[in-house]
Amino acid sequence: MTDTEVQHGSEHADGVIDLLGMLAYASLSSYFRLSADASVAASLPDRVVLAEMAVGEYDHFRRLQRRLEELNADPNAAMQPFVQALDAFHASTRPADWLEGLVKAYVGDGFSADFYRTIADLADPQTQALVNEVLADTGQSDFVITRVREAIVADPPLAGRLTLWARRLVGEALGEVQRIAAEREPLARLLGSGDSSQPGKIGRMFAKLTDGHSRRMDALGLARPDRRGTTGGAANRSFRAIRTRVKDRNRSANPQ
Amino acid sequence: MTDTEVQHGSEHADGVIDLLGMLAYASLSSYFRLSADASVAASLPDRVVLAEMAVGEYDHFRRLQRRLEELNADPNAAMQPFVQALDAFHASTRPADWLEGLVKAYVGDGFSADFYRTIADLADPQTQALVNEVLADTGQSDFVITRVREAIVADPPLAGRLTLWARRLVGEALGEVQRIAAEREPLARLLGSGDSSQPGKIGRMFAKLTDGHSRRMDALGLARPDRRGTTGGAANRSFRAIRTRVKDRNRSANPQ
Repeated sequence: MTDTEVQHGSEHADGVIDLLGMLAYASLSSYFRLSADASVAASLPDRVVLAEMAVGEYDHFRRLQRRLEELNADPNAAMQPFVQALDAFHASTRPADWLEGLVKAYVGDGFSADFYRTIADLADPQTQALVNEVLADTGQSDFVITRVREAIVADPPLAGRLTLWARRLVGEALGEVQRIAAEREPLARLLGSGDSSQPGKIGRMFAKLTDGHSRRMDALGLARPDRRGTTGGAANRSFRAIRTRVKDRNRSANPQ
Repeated sequence: MTDTEVQHGSEHADGVIDLLGMLAYASLSSYFRLSADASVAASLPDRVVLAEMAVGEYDHFRRLQRRLEELNADPNAAMQPFVQALDAFHASTRPADWLEGLVKAYVGDGFSADFYRTIADLADPQTQALVNEVLADTGQSDFVITRVREAIVADPPLAGRLTLWARRLVGEALGEVQRIAAEREPLARLLGSGDSSQPGKIGRMFAKLTDGHSRRMDALGLARPDRRGTTGGAANRSFRAIRTRVKDRNRSANPQ
């Protein structure tokens, strides 16, 4: 698919702009958040490492901004619809301390990255490639894993608090995904496009997101989410709500 | 002067490391400060413009970090002696709102830039070139000037408050310069090196700094500092204290 097709031809062009706009604002927000975390890090060397991560997020933002411009979309206009939802997510998941900030950077961003990658799989190859590059782990995860594991060794009861925190992060993220899917027609259409051609797509998306989350919890030495327990149940309910909404949309878009 | 000379030969090598370390930490702090200001800017486009400025500061930090590494200095160790003084400056000049933040970015950073350039004039040409590049105005000043002038047109009494704020910024900056000159032997030696060979150097430095400050106040549409008034008097006293200290040092270093 060429740029021109994405822009004028495809019915999913607006969905791609939505995806890029959402991801651009997410990168900008991550940049601000990481930068704020960095500024209060305990030592100067830690401040430098975290600032480097923050500026890495800003570089992602710049690349998405450029891609939106290439597609003749105004980057600020493309981001605007997602400002409220993403700000609400960050406001409701403000880390109480530096460690919660690290867990959020790893678990929260990891979960979001899987979500964006899943949508990008339904977009044109160039968008897919850019999204995957932008979301690639730059090796900074090792820093977070080391610091969190060290902290838990030094103070074992921390593990319980951080596990609950990580679950809350994913719960809030799912809530925002649900709201965005409800409000953004173009994105919901793009998300629904895979569903009709490949049955079970949303189910696989769910499995992929929870697998990724479990892997990250293991890496941090935190308890894995209980799929049959409360959090897994809430996540399942959120996903069912998204799936129903997407199906309803497809039905009303293509009445039989 | 080659790198090796700066590193091993010159008696001012440590002064150059001090200058680069101080400027590196100043760039890192500016980055954190601008990034925090950007995150609370009124509109999304403003947030993007300010974030771009912040990341520009981080790029300066990276270049100074690289130069320190080239000189076989540990960047974190080189920055550490200036952490307290620069943090104290920022803690005592925390902007009350976004406009004060803009004035600080322009007036405060402009003043500091002139100060660093003045020291760099006494260093080797490569350091001089890097410092001048890092401190070059990237055209973002126009943004600040426009916003501040617009705000004053909309609310004329603002001019008085912002003028007092700008004066306080320069007063606090001079206080920190004085403390740093008192505590950092290598930097004071570098600063003193120009003094003995070129009489009147410190006087000219003072004139250059106040001229630059007046130019920036004019650009913002704020009242120029009164050289014979309270603020000018305080600045003069600070400079006399620095000059006396540098002279005392030179006398004790080269007893007649």
